[in-house]
Amino acid sequence: MDVSEDDLLAAIRKVLAGAVQGVVVDVGDDAAVVRLGSGDLVLTTDALVEGTHFDRTLTTPRDLGAKAISVNVSDVAAMGGSPRHVLCALTLSEDVDAAWVMELLGGMREACDGYACSLVGGNLARGSEVSLAVTVTGEVARSRAVTRAGAHPGDVIVVTGDLGSAAAGRRIRATQRRFDEDDLASIRRAERPTARVAEGQVLAGHGATAMIDVSDGLGLDLWRLCTESGVGARVWAESIPRGPRASLEEALGGGEDYELLATLPSEAAAAAAASAIDEASGVQLSTIGEVLAGGELLQVEADGKERSLDPAGWDHFR
Amino acid sequence: MDVSEDDLLAAIRKVLAGAVQGVVVDVGDDAAVVRLGSGDLVLTTDALVEGTHFDRTLTTPRDLGAKAISVNVSDVAAMGGSPRHVLCALTLSEDVDAAWVMELLGGMREACDGYACSLVGGNLARGSEVSLAVTVTGEVARSRAVTRAGAHPGDVIVVTGDLGSAAAGRRIRATQRRFDEDDLASIRRAERPTARVAEGQVLAGHGATAMIDVSDGLGLDLWRLCTESGVGARVWAESIPRGPRASLEEALGGGEDYELLATLPSEAAAAAAASAIDEASGVQLSTIGEVLAGGELLQVEADGKERSLDPAGWDHFR
Repeated sequence: MDVSEDDLLAAIRKVLAGAVQGVVVDVGDDAAVVRLGSGDLVLTTDALVEGTHFDRTLTTPRDLGAKAISVNVSDVAAMGGSPRHVLCALTLSEDVDAAWVMELLGGMREACDGYACSLVGGNLARGSEVSLAVTVTGEVARSRAVTRAGAHPGDVIVVTGDLGSAAAGRRIRATQRRFDEDDLASIRRAERPTARVAEGQVLAGHGATAMIDVSDGLGLDLWRLCTESGVGARVWAESIPRGPRASLEEALGGGEDYELLATLPSEAAAAAAASAIDEASGVQLSTIGEVLAGGELLQVEADGKERSLDPAGWDHFR
Repeated sequence: MDVSEDDLLAAIRKVLAGAVQGVVVDVGDDAAVVRLGSGDLVLTTDALVEGTHFDRTLTTPRDLGAKAISVNVSDVAAMGGSPRHVLCALTLSEDVDAAWVMELLGGMREACDGYACSLVGGNLARGSEVSLAVTVTGEVARSRAVTRAGAHPGDVIVVTGDLGSAAAGRRIRATQRRFDEDDLASIRRAERPTARVAEGQVLAGHGATAMIDVSDGLGLDLWRLCTESGVGARVWAESIPRGPRASLEEALGGGEDYELLATLPSEAAAAAAASAIDEASGVQLSTIGEVLAGGELLQVEADGKERSLDPAGWDHFR
């Protein structure tokens, strides 16, 4: 295919355009939000496909199952929601045995338990490659979902945890044969990411104006948030929290971090959110930049020089 | 894989066993039902995988998109619910172009419009084969979802519309080069099935004790309903409504009918439901048998002889 994922998504949004009653947020954000009863329901789906997202010889089915849950829960977290229910459409190839499937489901269940949500349904199909298409529902208070579209000039930009570890972990695993503790922790981030559910709710509660989960790299996901909000951004390279083994490039474009990138209305709000998140989960919240009125994405280097920030990242269609 | 789809599902249910608060129906029915707000939410997911469920050279992307919606809406219909929201995790291979994807989405949107539900989100991934994993949410009044598990001995067994046309259509398309009107109508049933949403609600409203959509063949889906209900059934072969080109074998085991198979407490309830469905949509409701106390599935032939009914059908794992 000759188009990027973002180009195709833009075309799809045109096909699907048209406000529908009861739909609060539709195609183009981390998750959809629909009005239901007295609250809002968050809906998201994401597939892990063999060959593209995983290699069955390099991952255990238990880790794979858990990861399929986490990457979807991360989208609910990025709306400020609480995950509730999980469905999985599982495609299996001939060479998969029942024990592998049981381990996969065991990993899904473990992850669901950790996020206090329930695997309630699914489907089995036969295919030439294994894939897991997971759907997660979540709840969020009425009209309180945080989209990608609300960042204002002057807002501060924050990110949870650290970035680049998953990319570093993939590199280390492919190139090294001996691993120290930091190496193993990085590999573990790639194998078994954690969605930042509590952190997303704290950020929403502290007035986050926009939020996205960093799944395809900080540069690309920041560009998406800014594009949806119609703003630009200035990011201080030195402030970007990097994993112990991550290069700046991996922190900016590695992807699969599943940290939350958010904008908050003031430094005071960022400080209050940082303190609340530290208390709730011990995770660090770093201020990494500011929202600009123009559409430009700028990166400030250690020596104070500004240059354009490349929205590079993991585009599944490139 | 050395196990059938039903065997694997049974094993999966064991892994996932354990009542969860707020989950009314979980793995093992047409759809999951969860408590949410003042009503119940129906959740279902189903994937169409290239090579297994469709051949890109034999279907248009518009029909394929519409079918992916209908097969999921059919599961919501089988619970007596109203479809509301749709998500699609789309896996695309390298040789798919943007125009094909737009047509596919156009077909999805057409079908969604027909069922008065909204495509609210999705995901794009790269893979070696095309697949569409669709999730549909639906609403149903609190505690009013009709499961597979409530059939009682003495209930009458009914089915909407006619059976076997999709199987006949696939056969006709593969073997004939000239087609009459009935041939074309049969082929159309395979290409563009219709979910029986209004019919499901009428059946639920007339006290259906159990319901399932006929996706894998009457024999197999009746066996599933009876197994969940802990009952048996006697079916009169002559009473099974067949499509104009369908053999009895295709009506019993062809699959992809997307008609509703339900049990009702009495002949009077069946007659009332038949009249209400005829008035609402002009679709015929046929009484085809009765629920038995034992676990046996029996088929009564035209000459009055009884023989065992084989739960043959389309098992994606055989």
